[in-house]
Amino acid sequence: MTTSYEGSQIMPDHSSDQYPVDATNKVKRRHDRGFYDHDTVHALLDSAALAHVAYVIDERPFCTPTLFWREGTRLYWHGSSASRMLRNLSKGEPACLTVTHFDSIVLARSGFNHSADYRSVMAFGTARLVTDLVEKDRALTMMVDRFFPDRTALLRPTTGQETKATAVIAMEIEKASAKIRARGVVDDEEDYELPIYAERLPIRTVIGTPEPCPRIIPGVERATTLESYREGRHLEEALLEAYQLAYS
Amino acid sequence: MTTSYEGSQIMPDHSSDQYPVDATNKVKRRHDRGFYDHDTVHALLDSAALAHVAYVIDERPFCTPTLFWREGTRLYWHGSSASRMLRNLSKGEPACLTVTHFDSIVLARSGFNHSADYRSVMAFGTARLVTDLVEKDRALTMMVDRFFPDRTALLRPTTGQETKATAVIAMEIEKASAKIRARGVVDDEEDYELPIYAERLPIRTVIGTPEPCPRIIPGVERATTLESYREGRHLEEALLEAYQLAYS
Repeated sequence: MTTSYEGSQIMPDHSSDQYPVDATNKVKRRHDRGFYDHDTVHALLDSAALAHVAYVIDERPFCTPTLFWREGTRLYWHGSSASRMLRNLSKGEPACLTVTHFDSIVLARSGFNHSADYRSVMAFGTARLVTDLVEKDRALTMMVDRFFPDRTALLRPTTGQETKATAVIAMEIEKASAKIRARGVVDDEEDYELPIYAERLPIRTVIGTPEPCPRIIPGVERATTLESYREGRHLEEALLEAYQLAYS
Repeated sequence: MTTSYEGSQIMPDHSSDQYPVDATNKVKRRHDRGFYDHDTVHALLDSAALAHVAYVIDERPFCTPTLFWREGTRLYWHGSSASRMLRNLSKGEPACLTVTHFDSIVLARSGFNHSADYRSVMAFGTARLVTDLVEKDRALTMMVDRFFPDRTALLRPTTGQETKATAVIAMEIEKASAKIRARGVVDDEEDYELPIYAERLPIRTVIGTPEPCPRIIPGVERATTLESYREGRHLEEALLEAYQLAYS
């Protein structure tokens, strides 16, 4: 085995397609933590709603949080047409979209071995404004339905004005890498004998009690398609389940 | 009132120092959500462990997740000396460090009004390698003690080899902005009459059951300074409490 998930439950599927690897996306530090197959990369993307996008304006880097989703090997995100990032990306700009699942903080017996468990993806490509109206309409639907399957059909229809005011960005993934640490406490062998406390502090992102809008008119019920999102559930599980429903 | 926290419990302190505002950090889209005072910016930073850092290599953007912490108006993060980012930053490079607290997904009565509650900070500056040994030693201590007050004193001392293998990056915050949405469902007034379900789906990042290393030698107890980190607690509360202890 030249690769390992270091104890993670996720198993790499070596029959899956791979993203090409070069100097841009090759995991250099701790290369044993790097994966490039579509299945691993896509599963980490589809179990997230929040990404951070890096882009360059006047040679300076910007890092912007945004909701996003995947369709095949293409990523989508959105924002107002007024935003700085989108104005700049309209002609097509290199971007890097990163998703991080933060799984634990690791307290070891030395400062050096303190660490964290995480699963992250960096995806590289050229971001462009979606100008084709058919692609844009579809994207505006999936922007909602990817998270809440079939919800758009229940909503007040989007107006032309709203469509105009929403910019949709698309980025074909040219290269991508996943990086996974799932090892908990790992100390130097001789340090285990020392009288020092060590632990893995697990972290999880969960759904709270759904808060219905107080102005819902009587008799209107929560759709059964929202059942993925229930109190106490890991957000990533609900997001992945909804994604699979939406694109099944 | 020209600014508002839109229902958030956090109150802006207008007597606090402000970060300078210019085209780089001015919140343009939804400028009513933008804040620049040190107290707001710092509180959002100090209640987080994970940041995403954007930097530029060969005119291309990279977005890297990392643990970080703040000291005054300076941010620190680290990585192996071997990493691509750090090699590049050694001469001082512009960077943008972003922290996002993701608080909810908002299901509205129209696609357009679907949203999220969040609190984010974008901090801009020039990242540089810490080469001064005194500053580096202090940083390697606070890299642990900022999260776990006084822990370094209990650990196996860091070796010269380890210090050499750990690169520490510092970035003086030149500009910063916080952006906060804490409004839940907000629909167009006429849409409230429609028979459509709407809700705020709260999200929180919590601490799980601490997992002591199975190889701890008998009699070694968890330090009382770790009591901030207990099962079910919001991670951000524990991190802020630990931060205040560490720097008090």
